Amino acid sequence: MASCGNCFCCQCCCREGETRTPEELTILGEIRDEEDEILPRKDYESLDYDRCINEPCVEVLEGMNNKKAKKYEAVRWIMVFAIGVTVGLVGLFVDFFVRLFTTIKFSLVGDSVEKCSDKGCLSLSLLELLAFNMTFVFIASVLVLIEPVAAGSGIPEIKSYLNGVKIPGIVRLRTFLCKAAGVLFSVAGGLFVGKEGPMIHSGAIVGAGLPQFQSITFKRIKFDFPYFRSDRDKRDFVSAGAAAGVAAAFGAPIGGTLFSLEEGSSFWNQALTWKVLFCSMSATFTLNFFRSGINFNKWGSFQLPGLLNFGEFKCPDGDKNCHLWTIVDLAFFVLMGVVGGLLGALFNCMNKGLAKYRMRHIHPKAKFIRVLESLLVTMVTTVVIFTVSMLLGECRELSSPTTHNTTVSGSEDINSTVRQFFCSNKTYNDMATLFFNPQEAAIHQLFHQDGTFSPVTLSVFFLLYFLLACWTYGVSVPSGLFVPSLLCGAAFGRLVANILKVKLGMDIYSGTFALIGAAAFLGGVVRMTISLTVILIESTNEITYGLPIMITLMVAKWTGDFFNKGIYDIHIQLRGVPLLEWETEVEMDKLTASDIMETNLTYIYPHTRVQSLVSILRTTVYHAFPVVTENRQNERDFMKGNILVSNNIRFKKSSVVSRAGEQRRRCQSMKSYPSSELRNVCDEQSAVVEPAEEGEDLLQQMLERRHAPYPNLYPDQSPSEEWTMEERFRPLTFHGLILRSQLVNLLIRGVCYSENQSSATQPRLSYAEMTEDYPRYPDIHDLDLALLNPRMIVDATPYMNPCPYTVSPNTRISQVFNLFRTMGLRHLPVVNAVGEIVGIITRHNLTHEFLLAKLRQHYITI
Amino acid sequence: MASCGNCFCCQCCCREGETRTPEELTILGEIRDEEDEILPRKDYESLDYDRCINEPCVEVLEGMNNKKAKKYEAVRWIMVFAIGVTVGLVGLFVDFFVRLFTTIKFSLVGDSVEKCSDKGCLSLSLLELLAFNMTFVFIASVLVLIEPVAAGSGIPEIKSYLNGVKIPGIVRLRTFLCKAAGVLFSVAGGLFVGKEGPMIHSGAIVGAGLPQFQSITFKRIKFDFPYFRSDRDKRDFVSAGAAAGVAAAFGAPIGGTLFSLEEGSSFWNQALTWKVLFCSMSATFTLNFFRSGINFNKWGSFQLPGLLNFGEFKCPDGDKNCHLWTIVDLAFFVLMGVVGGLLGALFNCMNKGLAKYRMRHIHPKAKFIRVLESLLVTMVTTVVIFTVSMLLGECRELSSPTTHNTTVSGSEDINSTVRQFFCSNKTYNDMATLFFNPQEAAIHQLFHQDGTFSPVTLSVFFLLYFLLACWTYGVSVPSGLFVPSLLCGAAFGRLVANILKVKLGMDIYSGTFALIGAAAFLGGVVRMTISLTVILIESTNEITYGLPIMITLMVAKWTGDFFNKGIYDIHIQLRGVPLLEWETEVEMDKLTASDIMETNLTYIYPHTRVQSLVSILRTTVYHAFPVVTENRQNERDFMKGNILVSNNIRFKKSSVVSRAGEQRRRCQSMKSYPSSELRNVCDEQSAVVEPAEEGEDLLQQMLERRHAPYPNLYPDQSPSEEWTMEERFRPLTFHGLILRSQLVNLLIRGVCYSENQSSATQPRLSYAEMTEDYPRYPDIHDLDLALLNPRMIVDATPYMNPCPYTVSPNTRISQVFNLFRTMGLRHLPVVNAVGEIVGIITRHNLTHEFLLAKLRQHYITI
Repeated sequence: MASCGNCFCCQCCCREGETRTPEELTILGEIRDEEDEILPRKDYESLDYDRCINEPCVEVLEGMNNKKAKKYEAVRWIMVFAIGVTVGLVGLFVDFFVRLFTTIKFSLVGDSVEKCSDKGCLSLSLLELLAFNMTFVFIASVLVLIEPVAAGSGIPEIKSYLNGVKIPGIVRLRTFLCKAAGVLFSVAGGLFVGKEGPMIHSGAIVGAGLPQFQSITFKRIKFDFPYFRSDRDKRDFVSAGAAAGVAAAFGAPIGGTLFSLEEGSSFWNQALTWKVLFCSMSATFTLNFFRSGINFNKWGSFQLPGLLNFGEFKCPDGDKNCHLWTIVDLAFFVLMGVVGGLLGALFNCMNKGLAKYRMRHIHPKAKFIRVLESLLVTMVTTVVIFTVSMLLGECRELSSPTTHNTTVSGSEDINSTVRQFFCSNKTYNDMATLFFNPQEAAIHQLFHQDGTFSPVTLSVFFLLYFLLACWTYGVSVPSGLFVPSLLCGAAFGRLVANILKVKLGMDIYSGTFALIGAAAFLGGVVRMTISLTVILIESTNEITYGLPIMITLMVAKWTGDFFNKGIYDIHIQLRGVPLLEWETEVEMDKLTASDIMETNLTYIYPHTRVQSLVSILRTTVYHAFPVVTENRQNERDFMKGNILVSNNIRFKKSSVVSRAGEQRRRCQSMKSYPSSELRNVCDEQSAVVEPAEEGEDLLQQMLERRHAPYPNLYPDQSPSEEWTMEERFRPLTFHGLILRSQLVNLLIRGVCYSENQSSATQPRLSYAEMTEDYPRYPDIHDLDLALLNPRMIVDATPYMNPCPYTVSPNTRISQVFNLFRTMGLRHLPVVNAVGEIVGIITRHNLTHEFLLAKLRQHYITI
Repeated sequence: MASCGNCFCCQCCCREGETRTPEELTILGEIRDEEDEILPRKDYESLDYDRCINEPCVEVLEGMNNKKAKKYEAVRWIMVFAIGVTVGLVGLFVDFFVRLFTTIKFSLVGDSVEKCSDKGCLSLSLLELLAFNMTFVFIASVLVLIEPVAAGSGIPEIKSYLNGVKIPGIVRLRTFLCKAAGVLFSVAGGLFVGKEGPMIHSGAIVGAGLPQFQSITFKRIKFDFPYFRSDRDKRDFVSAGAAAGVAAAFGAPIGGTLFSLEEGSSFWNQALTWKVLFCSMSATFTLNFFRSGINFNKWGSFQLPGLLNFGEFKCPDGDKNCHLWTIVDLAFFVLMGVVGGLLGALFNCMNKGLAKYRMRHIHPKAKFIRVLESLLVTMVTTVVIFTVSMLLGECRELSSPTTHNTTVSGSEDINSTVRQFFCSNKTYNDMATLFFNPQEAAIHQLFHQDGTFSPVTLSVFFLLYFLLACWTYGVSVPSGLFVPSLLCGAAFGRLVANILKVKLGMDIYSGTFALIGAAAFLGGVVRMTISLTVILIESTNEITYGLPIMITLMVAKWTGDFFNKGIYDIHIQLRGVPLLEWETEVEMDKLTASDIMETNLTYIYPHTRVQSLVSILRTTVYHAFPVVTENRQNERDFMKGNILVSNNIRFKKSSVVSRAGEQRRRCQSMKSYPSSELRNVCDEQSAVVEPAEEGEDLLQQMLERRHAPYPNLYPDQSPSEEWTMEERFRPLTFHGLILRSQLVNLLIRGVCYSENQSSATQPRLSYAEMTEDYPRYPDIHDLDLALLNPRMIVDATPYMNPCPYTVSPNTRISQVFNLFRTMGLRHLPVVNAVGEIVGIITRHNLTHEFLLAKLRQHYITI
């Protein structure tokens, strides 16, 4: 979008005769776009891939030895295997019923058409088909009403999740049920949708859910299995599950593994990769085993790789001059890549417009409107394919059936799926063959059918499919995009092959061109790179297609990226998900951490009163709080002589992390505190300043200090007015980070001590107790304040993360970004040269949009 | 080794009737092993994958815009393509000459054998063969004498390089020439070695060298091409080159990409991966293009995937009951995996012993001894294969030649490579067929020959091959291990198939068992995981072998790992390379950063006198120096009241980073300073303490301080005796890290200012000037001291890395390790809560051996 806006703007400027620097143009271009743009929403939470090694965790560690570690690892392998098998079975289930329903539908309608061609009752056949399709889609649509997250392909959601964004509800059991059942009906209903995306989503849910042994949807599913209760483990399992989904859908275990690596785990962890590959393999071969058994009664052999495979590309035996492709063809493939990229960009652009329209005009209305839309799409689709097959299909001669007898054993014979609708014997209706078949069969036809399709048929088919698929994606049914894109692209590729072969008389292999067309269009739409290359290579089971597929995908991606993003990224953006890109642009390195960090922090002290904690938790929305202590008074003396340090501290001056401001805000909020007892505390003034027991207790020492160094203990004292300038900006040494969920947990479990006791008397929580409520920790507002004594003190130090990764304020964005993304962080404290916290960086500070805005500011300041 | 030692020890202990904790056992077991163990050497340098964004770099950044960035990116793509094509051509060259020499050799010897079988002059044939082989191996061996690094497979070296260790000479042009030519002769010489490992090494060298446009071997090769002069870029290109090497060797572009990811780039960088895949594809298809053209005169088509491919596994047409494998076979595959793992472990164990023997008894002696050893190995190998073929080969009937007519067009017919030595017509000598063929042809025979091999032949072949290959690996010729292992394992697999098929009458596909046997043995030897799976799948071009290959490799690896490491890791360890594993063991998390860091630091101040710098650089071997300033005096007051901070600072007390100690050492070293002028400076006492110009200059301010806060300016003052305890332990605030090479560069280029001027007068170096000498920066001892004024002051701050990643002393090992390995760091400063440096962690502090030693200490302390 940026580059597009840039060009456009450049034209305007040129007309005005002005010269502007590229930076200015970028800025202007962006501003123009902005009204239309959807900025990342701030309310998405991040997942935390980093490990917090606090005291409960250290306890677990101390008890750890190699034996235990191995046992733990073994459990992981078993889990991964279980996930793989389950995903395979899910794939089997979906595939079986789709096949069943489709077969019933097409055989009944086919019979009816054949009968009616003579009798002239074709409208009856149409009605029959309509009834089938509308019923199926209605069911799918109702399932999505139950769980709206189940709509669409699911890949954007999984991509976001693996990127580290928590999207509510996407890995729930209910979503899984609605998605798996829904996709079955939406595919059977004849919509132009695939089942691959939803398979991947289902796989991810299985991965997230299975190792937890509990469900939020069905509370009764709860076993005592206290492993893997962390974002880190869950995300690993989701990677494995998503990979298994791809593997089952395409029979591509390596592609699946690369998919989840490409989208997810930002650093290459060999142990994880190995598990993910194992999971993918399990899924592929479970599916393969059962399909070979059920469909061919060959139990024990493995003949059908995945739900979608492309059949075998091979030259007829004995024809020594036949090549699948030659170096000359490569030039055409590049051109097809360009066209595929253009078409993909057009598709995405149209779909984006449609999605925006839906967000504005359909989603706000009553829910049944969405069902009506699905039904409308179904009706139009059905009517279109019926009439077009009838009116525009050409009757072509069948190729000699002997040529293709030698296809891989087990795959259906290519000629068994041609349709003779409205055609005489020995010929077939080419349009009906494409439309009145499951999409996989149609793809096979385009890849392997020797009998030609007429150029008109292919063009019409492509056009209709393009438009209808574009309209369909986004309707509220579970709907994948892979198969429709492949089919559409295959038609385009076959068209090119037709032209080259028939018009120009070139000696080419049509199937290869159809495949490359499919790759080009799919690549233009989804813009995936490595994983898509590998998935397609695996689906064709032909390593020699590696180079042409890769080059085509590369060209398609580059062409498409010139205009807009991939379809999944567009939908992620429309949802306002703060996705992190792969890397920052080079220009962003003009910014440093201090330019982008969030300076408006709410901190806590190591020992804090319950009342302060409750107040902080109730009045802020932050998910993490730095634990800080105050620094020495004579900071400034030191700084004077030390330019380096004062450079580092500079930001502090302008930042809002001032004790005074914070103090005032807290006291304000305290006034509105609900418990009357607490309000009393706020009113009584100096009674609390009692002498301490002895020097041992840190808190007691602090109390002796003159300026009440723990202001949140006595928030009403509010000495801010009397404070000198220096005191207000007293720096805060950073000691650790504590999460909101951890604090709430401490409060709920009553982890605190009274002020006349030592902090050692505070009850200790175990690791299991800390993580028991994962993933849904109780809210602060659920807390029964009556049970808490507001004067008690919480020692947060054992539960905070004592050593999160930190960066210095001068660190360049690329380094910050790498650290954040690679380590899968959630909060990254910015700490200056003398250990004082000056800001925090979260995912929201690193999104492309935010960085761009900051870069603009940077240019303006210069 | 650990587990083995553990078991052994456990037995001893049990006999003694004592009970010990697992930890104690580990310790005892380890100590027992230790004498025998080779610890990582300290003199290997690390590569630096982190970017140092200092002022010259920022200057470059400021001039950067999107257009420039895109141009830069385009150059990268072109480079990557060029690397791929070059590697493909190298593969072509090696393959062509190996083929040529082997064909000549075998046809001449074959003719001679046929003639002599009748005449009885077989010893003449043997002599002929010996003459060929010894000549070829002699050439190979002499080439290795020229460049000793060219010996062996090269994979250990590349693995180390990609892991981040700089090994001298491994990416030089001379090494490349010796390796590529050497492997050609060693393979042609009939040794049991492969050309795959050396291909990978050659690829890596191409990757490292090509984008530099200069050579150290040939000084005249030097173009003005100032890009990619950093470890980071070089390592990326080496990744690409190594991947291209794998891709060319096996026709496995995806496998190659995964190989270099698995070994190298520790974090998943999409842009890099995409380039690596492109590079691999370029290499594969360049090779493919030329081989198809040269060997089959089919220019423009792509028929021969890689140097090594396994032919097509397929059931005979029409045989519907034939399966490549069934679920029952899987059980056998697992068993074969176990056996393969055991055999591999035995192989590794024997080879390790041999390698140690060589290191002790052969390497210290004159170099020609190595040549003699190579010739001895060649002689024994030649005599053995000749006599065994003659005496033990059985004459078997040929399978009907029609069955295999339908193999993939272009691959040689399987029956063209059988040998009829000493056999009547219509039969062939099975032993000679395996021995008197190129190894690739022998593998094809084992995979695809329908005619059976006798069990005796297979057993003898396996045994001899096993022993000879084990002896050969380590001889000083370029020698890969993949093909010998595959061939050896294939014989084992075929043996299993024979037994199952003939003795038990099972209906199995022999080729699959041979393949699985090959995978099992190779897996047992090299212990690679994902990449090997993918390489084998790609080489077979049969996706359905995914599961069995993966399971076999997994089982083989686990079985083998029970006894020892993979062969490459063993050789890396023998060389004492400080390799970083994938992740630390869970137990290591009992240690924190403070337990393992190097506390004996040599630091510099932001402004340092030339004489001090020279002295520091000459008397230390560190490669990086922290830039520090001293902290406020009243540290202790502050600490008293703050337990958290003083906890953090604790180590400081016991650590050696004390100003006093450092001071004394420096002054000592200063005394031995060579330049007489400098010695004078050391003698004149107080004359220098002149009043400063004004408060602006940091240095001047410092001079006014009482205790000479920059002690290295006046090293001879040595006030250490009068210092109070507090002063000695004055903490040092960390500001950045500067490399030795950067400091030497500054000195050589005269970047300094005189003390009565401001530091702004110091000349500024550009980014190009800073990196001009990459990768071989001048040594401090090359510096002409006469050109330097020792009283000048160097301002290091613009050139230091102002914000390297840092960790807190309490950080757990797993986190430290992850950060270090993932970001590819070279130095990781440990900084406490108030910004003071307390230690530095380098690669040597994170090796398994070091961590283990520290863990042992930890247990003892407890």
